[in-house]
This record gives sequence, structure tokens and C-alpha cells, in this order.
Amino acid sequence: MLKIEHIGIAVRDLAAANSLYEKLLGAAPYKEETVESEGVKTSFFENGPNKIELLEATTTDSAIAKFIEKKGEGIHHIAFAVADIQAEMARLREAGFTLLNDTPKRGADNKWVCFVHPKSANGVLVELCQDIVAENTNS
Amino acid sequence: MLKIEHIGIAVRDLAAANSLYEKLLGAAPYKEETVESEGVKTSFFENGPNKIELLEATTTDSAIAKFIEKKGEGIHHIAFAVADIQAEMARLREAGFTLLNDTPKRGADNKWVCFVHPKSANGVLVELCQDIVAENTNS
Repeated sequence: MLKIEHIGIAVRDLAAANSLYEKLLGAAPYKEETVESEGVKTSFFENGPNKIELLEATTTDSAIAKFIEKKGEGIHHIAFAVADIQAEMARLREAGFTLLNDTPKRGADNKWVCFVHPKSANGVLVELCQDIVAENTNS
Repeated sequence: MLKIEHIGIAVRDLAAANSLYEKLLGAAPYKEETVESEGVKTSFFENGPNKIELLEATTTDSAIAKFIEKKGEGIHHIAFAVADIQAEMARLREAGFTLLNDTPKRGADNKWVCFVHPKSANGVLVELCQDIVAENTNS
């Protein structure tokens, strides 16, 4: 766990939220990216060593659509940068945490990612993420 | 907005959550602090350039007690470090954000703080915080 890599925020309207967070953070998003497998459109803002990710659902069965239906817009997850995602997954399993993936999967912004079940962490959805440096490193 | 200073997480039982987050983050909290005016007991963990703050309510009318009653345990706020909190407050007011304080107030961990209304920011409670470097700098 090297730092908070990003905070993911579930929003209903990505374009409107981009405009609002540009005013809040004082800079425009540096990228937008759709992750078809997760049913989300995302945008990323830099903030010093950290990032803010905004997520809008693209399908009604997307995790983001379900989150907003249940809790409204707001902070969806906290992602920690890790140097070795496989090692961190093994360490957390050993410590009794429930992981939502058996192996790292491809996330947005060129990362290998794995989620920890919120029931393991006081209601917080925790993501581990590691930069993808070469094809198939972790697959 | 220099970086994510910390993420605040509302928990029911600070001692149990401290133990769990020590396992998650791989390090013990570096401090515990009660903020009587806010009705909270807090603990802080370092994580690279960022921190995690856990918050347990000490009174039934604490904002943290009300948050947990409504939404359950989970991420309560995101705090950004700022160099000049008065200037950032003025900038955000000008940009149309609703601030929850007219002037900075004393928060945990030796900070001047100000909150932005969640209705201004897609359901996210945003905190600005600036290190207190001398008595009465911002009061």
C-alpha cells in the first residue's frame, strides 16, 4: 500500500460532474475512458500525487448504477497503489480479508486491479492497483 | 488543492477498526485524538503522502452517528490539503460552491478545516485543510 492512487466517485451525469470537478480541483480531466466489461464511463483528474476518478454507469446492471440506486451519488471506492498486486492479494487473504477477484483484472487507466469486499473493511470498497508495465505480466 | 490529505471513514467501533486497518495498511495508527466539538474519536494512519482517518461518534447527535444511522459504516469525507484555506474558500464560493463554515475551524490533526456541502459536489463531503503553523493565523 504505497499511497491513495485514486478515489472513485459515482455520478449520474459524467459531463456535468466533469465540469463541476474541474471547478473544484482547478484543472480539467486528463483522460476519459470507457470500461465495457464494468459498464462504466470514467474520467480522471490529477491532484498532486493522487487522482480522482468519476464513474457513470453505461448499463442498468453496472455496479455503479446499483450503487447510485441504493446510496445515491458519492464516493464509491478508495484505490491504493501497490508495487506487487499478487503479493498484496496473498498478504490480505492470509490476514482474513475477502477478495472479490481470484486474480488481478484489467481496470481503467492502465492498471491491474483487485477489489476487497466492503464487508471486510467497515463498509469501504477497497481497490488495489498496480501499473501495467508489459502485456501479460500478471495474467 | 495540493493532494488528498486524508480520507475519513465512519466506523462503529474505533478499536476494532484500528486493528482491521492496521492489517489492511500494514502499519498501526500514528495518533488518536478526540475532537469534543465534533463529537468524534479519531485515529490516523499514514499511507505514503496520504492519511486515513477513522472516526467513531462519541455522542448520539454527532455527524458521524447520523451518517452511520443513515448510510452505515463507510467513507464519510475526502479532505484536500490546501496552501491557503481562506483563498480556496473564496475561490470556491465565487465558483458557486456552498461552504458549511463561514470561517476555517479547528479540526483534528492540527488543521484549519472547512467543509463544502455534499449537494455542491455530487454527494461527496469535501473538506479543505491547512496545517496550523501558529496560533490565530486564520482565526
